[in-house]
Amino acid sequence: MAFQKLPGTQDILPGASERWQYVEQKARDICRRYNFREIRTPMFESTELFQRGVGETTDIVEKEMYTFTDRGDRSVTLRPEGTAGVVRSYVENKLFGEPDVSKLYYIGPMFRYERQQAGRYRQFHQFGVEALGSVDPAIDAEVIALGYSFYTEVGLKGVRVEINSVGTPKVRADFREKLLAFLEPKRELLCKDCQSRMDRNPLRVLDCKNDQHHFEGAPSILDSLDEECSTHFNKLQQYLSDMGIPYTINSRLVRGLDYYTHTAFEYKSEGIGAIDTIGGGGRYNGLVAEIGGPDQPGIGLGLGLERTIMLLNKQAEQASEPQVDVYLVGLGEAAERETARLVYQLRQDGIRAERDYLGRKMKAQMKSADRLQARYTAILGDDELSRGEIALKDMASGEQRFVALDQLSAQVKS
Amino acid sequence: MAFQKLPGTQDILPGASERWQYVEQKARDICRRYNFREIRTPMFESTELFQRGVGETTDIVEKEMYTFTDRGDRSVTLRPEGTAGVVRSYVENKLFGEPDVSKLYYIGPMFRYERQQAGRYRQFHQFGVEALGSVDPAIDAEVIALGYSFYTEVGLKGVRVEINSVGTPKVRADFREKLLAFLEPKRELLCKDCQSRMDRNPLRVLDCKNDQHHFEGAPSILDSLDEECSTHFNKLQQYLSDMGIPYTINSRLVRGLDYYTHTAFEYKSEGIGAIDTIGGGGRYNGLVAEIGGPDQPGIGLGLGLERTIMLLNKQAEQASEPQVDVYLVGLGEAAERETARLVYQLRQDGIRAERDYLGRKMKAQMKSADRLQARYTAILGDDELSRGEIALKDMASGEQRFVALDQLSAQVKS
Repeated sequence: MAFQKLPGTQDILPGASERWQYVEQKARDICRRYNFREIRTPMFESTELFQRGVGETTDIVEKEMYTFTDRGDRSVTLRPEGTAGVVRSYVENKLFGEPDVSKLYYIGPMFRYERQQAGRYRQFHQFGVEALGSVDPAIDAEVIALGYSFYTEVGLKGVRVEINSVGTPKVRADFREKLLAFLEPKRELLCKDCQSRMDRNPLRVLDCKNDQHHFEGAPSILDSLDEECSTHFNKLQQYLSDMGIPYTINSRLVRGLDYYTHTAFEYKSEGIGAIDTIGGGGRYNGLVAEIGGPDQPGIGLGLGLERTIMLLNKQAEQASEPQVDVYLVGLGEAAERETARLVYQLRQDGIRAERDYLGRKMKAQMKSADRLQARYTAILGDDELSRGEIALKDMASGEQRFVALDQLSAQVKS
Repeated sequence: MAFQKLPGTQDILPGASERWQYVEQKARDICRRYNFREIRTPMFESTELFQRGVGETTDIVEKEMYTFTDRGDRSVTLRPEGTAGVVRSYVENKLFGEPDVSKLYYIGPMFRYERQQAGRYRQFHQFGVEALGSVDPAIDAEVIALGYSFYTEVGLKGVRVEINSVGTPKVRADFREKLLAFLEPKRELLCKDCQSRMDRNPLRVLDCKNDQHHFEGAPSILDSLDEECSTHFNKLQQYLSDMGIPYTINSRLVRGLDYYTHTAFEYKSEGIGAIDTIGGGGRYNGLVAEIGGPDQPGIGLGLGLERTIMLLNKQAEQASEPQVDVYLVGLGEAAERETARLVYQLRQDGIRAERDYLGRKMKAQMKSADRLQARYTAILGDDELSRGEIALKDMASGEQRFVALDQLSAQVKS
């Protein structure tokens, strides 16, 4: 029998993996410039951490987690998002005791058992950052700018930033009342999801794709902000304007997670059907205390790498690059044996080198060199070997010359 | 309540994560030169894949797998090693149909519920390569050389290579008889593990750390090799000698996985107590067919990154590097606001830049710049701002001068 990967998982093969490497390298470069440093937390944590840190009533915790009992009888969950684990680690390792703000980033797989859908995976990958320990709106702006720089520098076009303030828990409770007063008379007109959200998390109702036409005249959370919230939100806008980050205010923007306070933001891009949010984040001033740490504020973002790469694939075909510098062909038994040593020597010298492992004839080997877009082929016969030479052919110009074996690396490099 | 990471998992924090990045980047560099390309397979697969691909009677499958039932009622297992998933992907994606040998590598987490022990993790990390489609012993030598280059280039000292031939299944069956004839009279003298292995996998008995003194005069598998096996093993040795890879033959070397044929090898290093094997691999000519593919040969290696990094930590303290190029200090409200824009601009220009987010006084900010080993500090007061200038201080020389705001990036870069 043949085995298949599980539904919702993917194989990233050569040809595609290079694009992943490229995007991840960009993320690392940008974090280095912004002085965010990498943290790696485990792929699974105790289930309770996510119940507490993501929120019991969220779709993620209610329906989508990979939860199981391990051989030590603990309830364990594959991480469905990155923030809860990072905050747990920040608390457990007492990073809050350090004098500077903790600026952390992560890149890696997350797991949610979602309904199967184009562009949705059950193992998906996120690049995220978390800044813990500061309430300064300058760092909100910095986190938003970092994500914007990331999309711009990987080459995504037409990315928009939307921002909102979701206030403090108190502001939100007041707004919730006003909003429910507005929604209640329309309850029967709204979709099933909206009706269920009215009971669980009414703020998310305004985010509904189907029911926008019912929401004209709905109250705006921005009118409910207190002075602290307004000041924070205004300063954020000042900073973004100073930086030249193009943004719009979307007063209906609420993120899927319960823990946000003040700033919430999303990145949008046209181009993947109905799915237009490609990343987002927000401030979470209550979360650290919620999961057992001191009352430290935080703000973070999470960007889906699958969507980034899907858009990149759509927007531009990357030019294919030569995969090796030199392809070595050995003719005759002694020469063939020598190519194994030579190819090793070239690689030691920092050169991308390849040879044949299938006992193929010269013509088939040259075809292989073509497929790899080798810059040079180097052909060694027993005659050349006895003279200590090798024939080096420049594949672009077609020019061929003999070089001494011990000069091969230098010639390929020059 | 405060949450803790699960036993056997680890948090890799800033300060340690840089070493992981360094080691992984080295692995990628080397693979690029050797023309191995990255494959990424899912963190979990159907349980049956590992039962078939790793072997039902191995410790891994019998005792150590993270196995659970998902929400779709499938038996799922977190990957305990890298080869089975790669081979599954090679078959499912029909990579065997490509004209060249498939040379693949992976870096990532693996999961085994092992007894807790220093240096052993339940989520651990491996760098591995798999070459599928060739029986040429030159590629066995290349895979062994690649691992050796990796250890050498990351800076590990005193790494030794041990090689063996474990023959074909037929050779091994014959040898098994001879070996049991030798072991049977000693059964009662051997440790519990050995007694159990005698029944399940007698070849692994000779690998026992406790019972070596009972094995003098034991038969050697090398005396049982048929001509095909001997030729393959001799050629491998020729190639390794040609390349100058130092190796020794250890006829008792058998790897923990059932599927190896012909070449088996390990890398050893002194320095982590009793645990001296830091990586290894072998040829697995029957495995692709075993998991439902065509009868294609393969060879691979898997190197434990935890052990590599532990040895690196032991052998050399990496010099700490400046973490930012310039630390910006703003004095006064207008100047402080301007630093948020400036720091963004510097980062856009490729410079590692940082500022304060805690409303701290200048002295505390300068301390922060010291901790980050900033190459420069740049101090902006409202006076300088009105003149369009900033004070730039070289932290090594102590020299300070005023530069125009729009020249700051250029000055820091030069």
